Amino acid sequence: MHRVKVRVVEDALDANATIARANRDDFERAGVTVVNLMSAPGAGKTTLLERVLADGLGDLRVGVLEGDVQGSLDADRLARLHVPVVQLNTGEGFGGECHLDANMVRSALPALALDDLDLLIVENVGNLVCPAEFRIGEDARIMVSSVAEGDDKPLKYPLMFRACELVVVNKVDLLPHVDFDLPAFLHRLDAVHPGVAHLACSARTGEGVGAVREWLAALPERSRAPR
Amino acid sequence: MHRVKVRVVEDALDANATIARANRDDFERAGVTVVNLMSAPGAGKTTLLERVLADGLGDLRVGVLEGDVQGSLDADRLARLHVPVVQLNTGEGFGGECHLDANMVRSALPALALDDLDLLIVENVGNLVCPAEFRIGEDARIMVSSVAEGDDKPLKYPLMFRACELVVVNKVDLLPHVDFDLPAFLHRLDAVHPGVAHLACSARTGEGVGAVREWLAALPERSRAPR
Repeated sequence: MHRVKVRVVEDALDANATIARANRDDFERAGVTVVNLMSAPGAGKTTLLERVLADGLGDLRVGVLEGDVQGSLDADRLARLHVPVVQLNTGEGFGGECHLDANMVRSALPALALDDLDLLIVENVGNLVCPAEFRIGEDARIMVSSVAEGDDKPLKYPLMFRACELVVVNKVDLLPHVDFDLPAFLHRLDAVHPGVAHLACSARTGEGVGAVREWLAALPERSRAPR
Repeated sequence: MHRVKVRVVEDALDANATIARANRDDFERAGVTVVNLMSAPGAGKTTLLERVLADGLGDLRVGVLEGDVQGSLDADRLARLHVPVVQLNTGEGFGGECHLDANMVRSALPALALDDLDLLIVENVGNLVCPAEFRIGEDARIMVSSVAEGDDKPLKYPLMFRACELVVVNKVDLLPHVDFDLPAFLHRLDAVHPGVAHLACSARTGEGVGAVREWLAALPERSRAPR
């Protein structure tokens, strides 16, 4: 049983990598830069996007792909911003619902006018484990960590903190009210992912969100640079 | 590919149910009541246990099984309470690390002196999706939801909110500082799991923790009653 399971998992990850490459080819052809936005449930991904996209992102044409187990609450919130939003529900049944994979994203591409976008932000399912293992063809992964979750999280979910190019520490307005030691968090982050970029903000109050907006606005330019 | 995946998932859930029944038989033979404690990452499961177990739980002999992807931070915290704590790491590789299943729990049983326990609390991996699908042979499931995660969570993770006998709304000390509408949360909870028991507390300040302690202390008696 165990060997069968391991082989199926390896096959699934291989298949995912193949489809992720196909997505990536499509994204490059359309000239769209893609961000995979990940976090635990309730860390503030949607609120951060509301803040970041409220006044647009310079000249960039932005679209959002909303991944949720069920419902369209987040897509409905973002649709008010007048950016194209496509909802993707991961549906019923274990194995298909706890993360977005390359195939789910691929199935949503026909609903997106990729040629009309410069930046596509994919909001993943709230989960600190499985999303880290499934590339979707993205250029960059952003991980949002709320100070309410505690400063031990990099040590407890190291794979997720390694699987990103930017860590956003959110809800800093709560710092006076929670036991969260920011230097200790950053020290632990550096231990599991040395040198990773990080920004601190409060999506609720807007503090620090400008730097997140700038990071995102500069991403298409950075992604086009030779690697 | 899809059909193979569905069959493997069904086989895995069938195998899990079989092992969960074996666990349950062992628990009943030893006269130990078992609680599966679940939540999103950073909702406060460990802090709640620290508070609840700080002065013991009446005459009950309590043990803890700590599930984590990696590390022993939580087990180390709880070991200070002088209750037996066994650490279980779900290890590397997708499919085995985002939740506890019956077999992982079973593998830890030899390290626990079941006959010397009345109540075993199993702290699951922080995740609002997969743990809901894997019974471990427990008598009751408790789900902890932090007010910092937002009041929309029952609608976004309905399976988890259905898969429990008690919902604990934690971090109520943060209510003045977050946009969390408790009546709206309870209304949504009742929509996805009509009539489920719920308690509100702050594991950090201790407010409301007495009621959680009483619920747990009464559980062995309730579980022994004819069903």
